[in-house]
Amino acid sequence: METGQTEISTLGEFGLIERLTKELPLKNTETKLGVGDDAAVLNFGEKDALVTTDLLLEGIHFDLRYVPLKHLGYKSAIVNFSDIYAMNGTPRQITVSIGVSSRFTVEHIEELYSGIRLACETYGVDLVGGDTSASVTGLVISITCIGDVEQGKAVTRSGAKPTDILCVSGDLGAAYMGLQLLERENRVSAGKKDFQPDFAGKEYILERQLKPEARKDIIEELHRNGITPTAMMDVSDGLSSELLHICKSSGVGCRVYEDRIPIDYQTALMAEEFNMNLVTAAMNGGEDYELLFTVPITDNEKVEKIKGVTMIGYVTKPELGCAMMTRDGAEIPVKAQGWNAFNNV
Amino acid sequence: METGQTEISTLGEFGLIERLTKELPLKNTETKLGVGDDAAVLNFGEKDALVTTDLLLEGIHFDLRYVPLKHLGYKSAIVNFSDIYAMNGTPRQITVSIGVSSRFTVEHIEELYSGIRLACETYGVDLVGGDTSASVTGLVISITCIGDVEQGKAVTRSGAKPTDILCVSGDLGAAYMGLQLLERENRVSAGKKDFQPDFAGKEYILERQLKPEARKDIIEELHRNGITPTAMMDVSDGLSSELLHICKSSGVGCRVYEDRIPIDYQTALMAEEFNMNLVTAAMNGGEDYELLFTVPITDNEKVEKIKGVTMIGYVTKPELGCAMMTRDGAEIPVKAQGWNAFNNV
Repeated sequence: METGQTEISTLGEFGLIERLTKELPLKNTETKLGVGDDAAVLNFGEKDALVTTDLLLEGIHFDLRYVPLKHLGYKSAIVNFSDIYAMNGTPRQITVSIGVSSRFTVEHIEELYSGIRLACETYGVDLVGGDTSASVTGLVISITCIGDVEQGKAVTRSGAKPTDILCVSGDLGAAYMGLQLLERENRVSAGKKDFQPDFAGKEYILERQLKPEARKDIIEELHRNGITPTAMMDVSDGLSSELLHICKSSGVGCRVYEDRIPIDYQTALMAEEFNMNLVTAAMNGGEDYELLFTVPITDNEKVEKIKGVTMIGYVTKPELGCAMMTRDGAEIPVKAQGWNAFNNV
Repeated sequence: METGQTEISTLGEFGLIERLTKELPLKNTETKLGVGDDAAVLNFGEKDALVTTDLLLEGIHFDLRYVPLKHLGYKSAIVNFSDIYAMNGTPRQITVSIGVSSRFTVEHIEELYSGIRLACETYGVDLVGGDTSASVTGLVISITCIGDVEQGKAVTRSGAKPTDILCVSGDLGAAYMGLQLLERENRVSAGKKDFQPDFAGKEYILERQLKPEARKDIIEELHRNGITPTAMMDVSDGLSSELLHICKSSGVGCRVYEDRIPIDYQTALMAEEFNMNLVTAAMNGGEDYELLFTVPITDNEKVEKIKGVTMIGYVTKPELGCAMMTRDGAEIPVKAQGWNAFNNV
């Protein structure tokens, strides 16, 4: 064990929880009781409550050889906030359960929690409970996020109608190219002491992979402009996969234009360096945490004004299926090649 | 792989979720939208919402060599319901996240889910979401339960007052003795084919370990008799540990009478067979999922009438500490020797 590090067993489960959750001022009036009892107590008044949960496992969803614990904590929280925004809601509370093997010290867990706390502070969310346990194997992180939304205003995946415009926020494929870069540097550095990878000019794709943000700003812009999407979800598994989800849930088809897919130039450069198909990476890479949504065609002009939103296509009748129009005018069916946790083991 | 078993990768993540969550009629009017979107949508009207979460890891919290998957699913749900009852609430929804290694088939996961579904049916709870992932190591189960309670009626651990009566439901130590029995039979049977353990006369302690119930009935009885506990929690880590929690949170002390600790005769017989101290097992064994609560002394007669509740002692001023009065009149300080996940690895 490194010097200055504390073995978890010296604190025990309750000592550890106490240390991790001390000084957690509650920020939301909806949170009536936080950490420390059998359950947290919340009150949403007239509003609808939203609940989402994510399980992150070492070796499947993250690799501690190149993901700093603080970033991992931040990202673990963000991916849940993103799901709440994708319902047109506001994240209010999270519970955090972690399982840690004996190679982790109290300081490691504090590092992980510092990222979770930072995310909570940044997005105004209360940490209200959780569970801390030993694990015989890798690190396990399970986060549940609760949010709220005006009654009846939750936006699901199932409301898209033919002629609606398909929109996506930000740009796609960057997090995936960031992962490719990290994995390559990890291979190159294997066994080499003091290896210093050169990440100059690649900061954006790394940040997209290691410290993504949830699109609170886009939800606020939509509200400000009086736009309620007919369907919405966040892009976690890849645009192709999410398009198919919306089309299936809404019982519609869609057309997406290849040349409208928003891609950052760092993503493009990296794809070229790796000799990868750029559009495939953008369509299937995943972990973008951007918002994919549909709006009635009458909202065309309002959406156009929102910075950081791109209209990428439109919704069709179901019999037309889900397809991409390429630059040269061909129509290619959209297929889910997104990340599947069960094919990676 | 056994015949008739399906590899999970043939279904993929979404196929598996679809198969596991099909035909899930929603039972609670509070549940407006269940499985299948970024988040579930709930509405609790005027009521307070309760949230609790538990993480169960193979090799730490359960051993698949002697725990059938269906029982494991049932118990995983029950332990969360128990936390909601312990707040004086009613469980309404759960989300279930599981991580499974490649040695599990679709049928195994269906077996696990059949236990979760049975628990949900029995207790009137809706399964509203979750996450399913591969795991490079053991089975991971993370369940979050949401419940509700009349506004302001949640019972925490912090309301106990000196002179209050300490009560506990059911009996203690049985689940722990059931575990001892299962572990012994597992050691004895190691390597022996067709070994048939003899569990006759030990059904109760086995059931307490493998298929515990949450004390919905006690909460209903308390309501029916117009009793609102001043403090309450469920006994998961052991009575000693929970007494200390209530005393610490409430800023009080307590006296518990050794001869009032409720113990079933199967528990007693098993402790004798194992040459274990019975009271230690009952005080520290844990996993009882009984309710420990305090009521004002004026509720004495009302509590006495409730079947299955035992008055085990009383609450004192904090300076008197937390102690057990033994049969021979000695006063022994209560210490938490309860189950600690970090000392078992």
